[in-house]
Amino acid sequence: ETEIPESHPRYESLLTRHRIEHGVDIGITSRQGLIAQGRGEAYDYLLGEQTIESADDAARAAAAHFLLADQAVVSVNGNVAALVPGEVVELADATGADIEVNLFNRTRERMEAIADHLREHGAEDVKGLAADGEIPGLDHARAKVDADGIGSADVVLVPLEDGDRAQALSAMGKTEVVIDLNPLSRSAQAASVPIVDNIIRAVPNITRHARELRDADEAELRAVVDSFDAETALEAAERAIRRGE
Amino acid sequence: ETEIPESHPRYESLLTRHRIEHGVDIGITSRQGLIAQGRGEAYDYLLGEQTIESADDAARAAAAHFLLADQAVVSVNGNVAALVPGEVVELADATGADIEVNLFNRTRERMEAIADHLREHGAEDVKGLAADGEIPGLDHARAKVDADGIGSADVVLVPLEDGDRAQALSAMGKTEVVIDLNPLSRSAQAASVPIVDNIIRAVPNITRHARELRDADEAELRAVVDSFDAETALEAAERAIRRGE
Repeated sequence: ETEIPESHPRYESLLTRHRIEHGVDIGITSRQGLIAQGRGEAYDYLLGEQTIESADDAARAAAAHFLLADQAVVSVNGNVAALVPGEVVELADATGADIEVNLFNRTRERMEAIADHLREHGAEDVKGLAADGEIPGLDHARAKVDADGIGSADVVLVPLEDGDRAQALSAMGKTEVVIDLNPLSRSAQAASVPIVDNIIRAVPNITRHARELRDADEAELRAVVDSFDAETALEAAERAIRRGE
Repeated sequence: ETEIPESHPRYESLLTRHRIEHGVDIGITSRQGLIAQGRGEAYDYLLGEQTIESADDAARAAAAHFLLADQAVVSVNGNVAALVPGEVVELADATGADIEVNLFNRTRERMEAIADHLREHGAEDVKGLAADGEIPGLDHARAKVDADGIGSADVVLVPLEDGDRAQALSAMGKTEVVIDLNPLSRSAQAASVPIVDNIIRAVPNITRHARELRDADEAELRAVVDSFDAETALEAAERAIRRGE
């Protein structure tokens, strides 16, 4: 998709930039998405542009939750679709999760452009267009979900999610996995499993852990889940960003 | 310009967002500008969205440099024009500085849209369109400046400047004042006077110091300049961002 060699020292950063630009060109990345991308770049820079140990632990706990779930759903917004379309499809394939498009600023055009983009990257069933369910406690326009998608799921991965929605999903009693580079954000704070990492690294990392844990029995998966502590992980991430540790 | 009351706890942040959105609407804020805005938001959040003491010292040193200059120029790019058009004009008025539009991605349309926007905010003479000078050591497209503007100035304020250009300007022996929320950026590192602060706060702050110093004699201005140490200020800013101190 690009001519950037993987050996380039700024490969990940250039790839990210390339995908975001493409996302704007095809109408799936919004103005707010570009600003959010910039915020992520700054936090990732301070984090050393690497997956810290607590984020890897979180990705492993997320994988175990996915494998234990009755129904897991990956929620996809404009930046997620632009940045990791193929990686989201691989994660869904590896764990049996559903994919649902869910936008803070929902328009029919963007919903469909995102669903198309995901299908081009191998997604078979893309939810989100039915919008026949609601998350309680949010404005009507912000609350829409598919009743048989995020509405009924027991485990939801919401990368780069708005704080209000992350809190409302958590209040529904769902196990919520959030990917967010700011450990102080309300989304990260609301999550059962906050992964403080770049989405470009975090999504494939959950998939890798899910493949490793594929043959684990329920007791082993529960042990992975129970050994993860969200508060400790957030503290470690804040330390890494603040002090470069 | 907006209906946000100044007493709103998120006033500054909402005003910033409003101005950036307007900048996109009138064609002066670019995609890269939106991403840069997001990076700034993240650093400012970690900084506590306040002007730290070392940044106030830097703003005072910048004001003294402006008043001592044979010719000072404020370099304006898309985000600067979108965020602080009136504030740049006030600074130029208070110090006798010139205003020059200077873009990393230069197109005639954007140059003119920015010059128009500055004129709407009271600028009388806007340089940058002649582009009959060059900064040595840069690609031709990136090097263009006005010969009688940045080309001949002894003091240049470059808010939110690209690292290569900040270094090349510094290599010309000019006194360079940079406003950048990332103290580790090459621009901040290259500056004679790095101001690690939000441009929304920093530009009016330089103006305020310039007005205070208006009647100071040369010895007093030199003392202000000499008492400022860039390295110490950058270290203080990094500590503030990393540790919240």
